[in-house]
Amino acid sequence: MELFEAMRTCRSIRRFRPDPVDECVLWQCLKAAGYAPSGSNAQPWRIIVVNSDEARALLGPAYRKGAAWSMGIYGVTRPPDDDNSRRARMTRSMFELVDNFESIPYYVMFLTELWDNLPDHLAGSAVYPAVHNFMLAARSFGLGTVPTMWFMECEDELRALLEIPEMWHIAALMPLGYPKGRHGPLHRRPIEELVHWNRFGDHRPAPEGLELPGAIEKSR
Amino acid sequence: MELFEAMRTCRSIRRFRPDPVDECVLWQCLKAAGYAPSGSNAQPWRIIVVNSDEARALLGPAYRKGAAWSMGIYGVTRPPDDDNSRRARMTRSMFELVDNFESIPYYVMFLTELWDNLPDHLAGSAVYPAVHNFMLAARSFGLGTVPTMWFMECEDELRALLEIPEMWHIAALMPLGYPKGRHGPLHRRPIEELVHWNRFGDHRPAPEGLELPGAIEKSR
Repeated sequence: MELFEAMRTCRSIRRFRPDPVDECVLWQCLKAAGYAPSGSNAQPWRIIVVNSDEARALLGPAYRKGAAWSMGIYGVTRPPDDDNSRRARMTRSMFELVDNFESIPYYVMFLTELWDNLPDHLAGSAVYPAVHNFMLAARSFGLGTVPTMWFMECEDELRALLEIPEMWHIAALMPLGYPKGRHGPLHRRPIEELVHWNRFGDHRPAPEGLELPGAIEKSR
Repeated sequence: MELFEAMRTCRSIRRFRPDPVDECVLWQCLKAAGYAPSGSNAQPWRIIVVNSDEARALLGPAYRKGAAWSMGIYGVTRPPDDDNSRRARMTRSMFELVDNFESIPYYVMFLTELWDNLPDHLAGSAVYPAVHNFMLAARSFGLGTVPTMWFMECEDELRALLEIPEMWHIAALMPLGYPKGRHGPLHRRPIEELVHWNRFGDHRPAPEGLELPGAIEKSR
């Protein structure tokens, strides 16, 4: 798949078909993660591919608890069936993710080391490029995934179950499977608003005719 | 460019030709950054494209100071001209980066917000996928870049010069230009060593015949 096609249709997928994922395809996505750069080429990250019944039994309830907590924070409830707004569809997909969490083919967990001598906001500089390569590769094989954090609701039990050494921190859990819906298009802010030129606050218009990510684009 | 071709030849580039970078090509790379996913689609990151003389005058000495500090830590010195080992070439490219830092066409700085309610190691989950999309896009246009952190040697002065508000933290500075050398191949650990299955410490061999990133691969 062409690079830009993959990037501009690499939507977060929360609704999965039960179809199994071939292990060779999974390996290709893992391999993509392995290409990511890291400072001094140290690759201070690891992956645990999880699909055991024990982990499923732990993660399902934790994700439903995490979703309930988030929905409470944002004051969101299950939308009525006839509400087809973007927000309602988004909320519905969130519930569909957690309601069916146990039946997702794989959970791919990314772990990272933390370094004492680096400021906190630089800690993810090695692991998230690997996460993102994995996500792009999954997209290119027609698979879907989404970076999730609600493993935090059962982090101690999960760490014990997977025997994760203390030095490794869970940076993301990526559910992996074939999407029910389709990939892309993305909804993003116009890039001109996020880019400043030589001084924070100074923006420039993008050149005429440049196709921009803020616009809704067709995906294949 | 094909996605996997971009990923597996997306080498860190530290030696640049003085050739200017067309602003339209730069915009395409910025646009790629804009496609990156982020929690709740908040896009809590910004870019400052920097190419002013004032910033060059600040960054050049800071990067040489940072390099000297790092080289001291690792006990590395400028290698003799006849040493053509991988380590010597790597060290030489590091010195070439900082010796010529002022003449690199652009410095693309990525900023991120930090959120109080997230653990530190999750802080980079939004900005580094954007950084990585930028890096892959640059690769696809034949440009080179490398995530660097030595801006820390002049961070206060740089923040003042670019008028960066307090809430934004510099996550990476990406020098951008056309490489002197070529892209790829990458040197990475065999992915089987980094991937665990259902329990930390349990590895599986990759399927027979799967081309793995640990091997040195030909690039175009």
